[in-house]
Amino acid sequence: MKPDDLQPAPWLLARRAEKMNPSVIREILKVTERPGIISFAGGLPSPRTFPVEAFAQACDQVLRRDGPAALQYAASEGYAPLREMVADMLPWKVDPAHVLITTGSQQGLDLAAKVLVDAGSRILVETPTYLGALQAFAPMEPEVVSVASDRDGVLTDDLARKAAGARFIYLLPNFQNPTGRTMTEARRAALSQCAQQLALPIVEDNPYGDLWFDAPPPLPLAARNPDGCLYLGSFSKVLAPGLRLGFMVAPAAVYPKLLQAKQAADLHSPSFNQRMIVEVMQGGFLDRHVPTIRALYKSQRDAMLAALDREMKGLDVQWNAPDGGMFLWARLPRGMDAIRLLPKAVAEGVAFVPGAAFYADAPDARTLRLSFVTASAQEIDAGVAALARAIGQQSRQGD
Amino acid sequence: MKPDDLQPAPWLLARRAEKMNPSVIREILKVTERPGIISFAGGLPSPRTFPVEAFAQACDQVLRRDGPAALQYAASEGYAPLREMVADMLPWKVDPAHVLITTGSQQGLDLAAKVLVDAGSRILVETPTYLGALQAFAPMEPEVVSVASDRDGVLTDDLARKAAGARFIYLLPNFQNPTGRTMTEARRAALSQCAQQLALPIVEDNPYGDLWFDAPPPLPLAARNPDGCLYLGSFSKVLAPGLRLGFMVAPAAVYPKLLQAKQAADLHSPSFNQRMIVEVMQGGFLDRHVPTIRALYKSQRDAMLAALDREMKGLDVQWNAPDGGMFLWARLPRGMDAIRLLPKAVAEGVAFVPGAAFYADAPDARTLRLSFVTASAQEIDAGVAALARAIGQQSRQGD
Repeated sequence: MKPDDLQPAPWLLARRAEKMNPSVIREILKVTERPGIISFAGGLPSPRTFPVEAFAQACDQVLRRDGPAALQYAASEGYAPLREMVADMLPWKVDPAHVLITTGSQQGLDLAAKVLVDAGSRILVETPTYLGALQAFAPMEPEVVSVASDRDGVLTDDLARKAAGARFIYLLPNFQNPTGRTMTEARRAALSQCAQQLALPIVEDNPYGDLWFDAPPPLPLAARNPDGCLYLGSFSKVLAPGLRLGFMVAPAAVYPKLLQAKQAADLHSPSFNQRMIVEVMQGGFLDRHVPTIRALYKSQRDAMLAALDREMKGLDVQWNAPDGGMFLWARLPRGMDAIRLLPKAVAEGVAFVPGAAFYADAPDARTLRLSFVTASAQEIDAGVAALARAIGQQSRQGD
Repeated sequence: MKPDDLQPAPWLLARRAEKMNPSVIREILKVTERPGIISFAGGLPSPRTFPVEAFAQACDQVLRRDGPAALQYAASEGYAPLREMVADMLPWKVDPAHVLITTGSQQGLDLAAKVLVDAGSRILVETPTYLGALQAFAPMEPEVVSVASDRDGVLTDDLARKAAGARFIYLLPNFQNPTGRTMTEARRAALSQCAQQLALPIVEDNPYGDLWFDAPPPLPLAARNPDGCLYLGSFSKVLAPGLRLGFMVAPAAVYPKLLQAKQAADLHSPSFNQRMIVEVMQGGFLDRHVPTIRALYKSQRDAMLAALDREMKGLDVQWNAPDGGMFLWARLPRGMDAIRLLPKAVAEGVAFVPGAAFYADAPDARTLRLSFVTASAQEIDAGVAALARAIGQQSRQGD
């Protein structure tokens, strides 16, 4: 055979891969990693909250005491003491046998989709919803349907209209990403009852629930009907995201399948990291640590609200005042487009995420997400002023 | 609404999940975790090879020097210095931009399937092949077709007969799991040419390649045709599996899609662990460390071969003598079934994995996989003697 006979391998891609395309917004946001840009864009916890010293001690302890075991292959379910700690810290009765440790709560979304979604299966999401969930569900090729929402959460009458045949509804009831909104107690009660009536499973994602400012949010939906909910939690916001550890609490009807999907996906989450977290959390560490995160993020939310009040005067911009979490949701004046605003804002030295990214369909082009946790209070002041200048310009150009 | 109206959530499972069932073999093997059982079953590296002290120093360095960055969210591609180290250590010219860090090489199999496999797509595997790969591919619902193999690797004429429409062939050319066999240079050359002629992509899995005993294996298939191969590597066997880190090297035609699948699956692999590995590997650590693993595993392979020679006399059992890796492949006398043998072996105090688990179709019931790396040389002697007793009993019972 001559070299000419050799054909290049064709790499015929799966149908789902053809649909994966680099996000326009991600491309724009690459610019925002430039030094000197104040970023309200990323969902990065403040590194000031990472308990570096506690981790250093924990690593040392774990390696010197249990090195070989901590570095060996381990059970796909997760490290038993960590599963017990997770069960103990949740505000309803959870059997540790129903806890599955995941490689970040993002992996929980991937596993849920693998186990529950066929090509063409309907799944329901809030309007807007977490972009990463849409990305995690996409490879299983669902039909994603948005349920209308108001400031209290999803609307149960719209849910009832759209639920026929749906595999689940995906919800972020606490300090939602992207809007920062929290589902009220009344809406949770109504929604939980409605979902049970419809026999509609709930996938409840709660990465931010511990980051409340004045009072804890109402009980999770999973606490009201554990058999009808898959609950996802994370250590990324209360300890550190770089360890990539989260967890699922799953009813007996789906746990074994999730476990097999987990095993196929990465065998197990890092055993060393699981033991580090157990070591750090012993003795009630989170009870002392998490209040310091809450206080910091509350002060930064306050700084952002004050800056918005001061800088957005006369610009017809609306925003909410989240009770916790990391994000605030704003809306530009009628006719203005957040994607078109972004390059102007970057030119002024500030970045955000246009809200359009977070809609499964029918995006509201006027919306944008502002993170108040990564930038310092001083940067928040300067960043909001820069954003106001960009909006002012855009407004004068009638764009 | 009365409580009676509440229905249990139905948890309608995806079609692929209905097919996931607990493996019979996994159930049997649970018994083997009992203390006192000598296990040749698991694929666990010897914990004696884990560089615990080097990891302890690395953790301390990483946290004290770069704590906040090491604990923060990070790029989905992986930590740039680690990607560069991976590119440098491979025996062909690799651009670090083509390296994707994965959560163990198991995740690479999940991502490859997501990007390359539609429901019903044909994929080709060796006979037998790695069980975990079959599990990782299964959620994408491929048609898995076995290609006939001899002791030198897959047979190219059978490959050519079955390649029409196949998305890729999955191969473990070095010290294969489960057989321990290595594809010869001649077979690699023929296979590489054949795959290029057929325009058939290769997914090449190489977790064991560094564990050679007397001489390194021939060059990887990816080195012969980088544009036609997806190459998977792992740190589990040369450093430690509990950190869950591996990597893929992917051609430009598929890298962006794999990256998006990676981001959707777990955002990124643990940044802390990636930095730990970079810290440990600096200054040529693997050049000093890996030879100690090779020497240990070679001595354990020799112990197992000697024990088999001694204990299996007159039993009509066959086995191979792998040139590296962790596994040896044995075949029982005609008419004997390794699954039926297992409980008898466990009763005698030794465990193995019946070979049937590793076949996509038409299993050879007489085969079994023996790991020679987890048990000590002394345990190997006792375990092989126990296995011979079980085979002798089974043989006398004509079972």
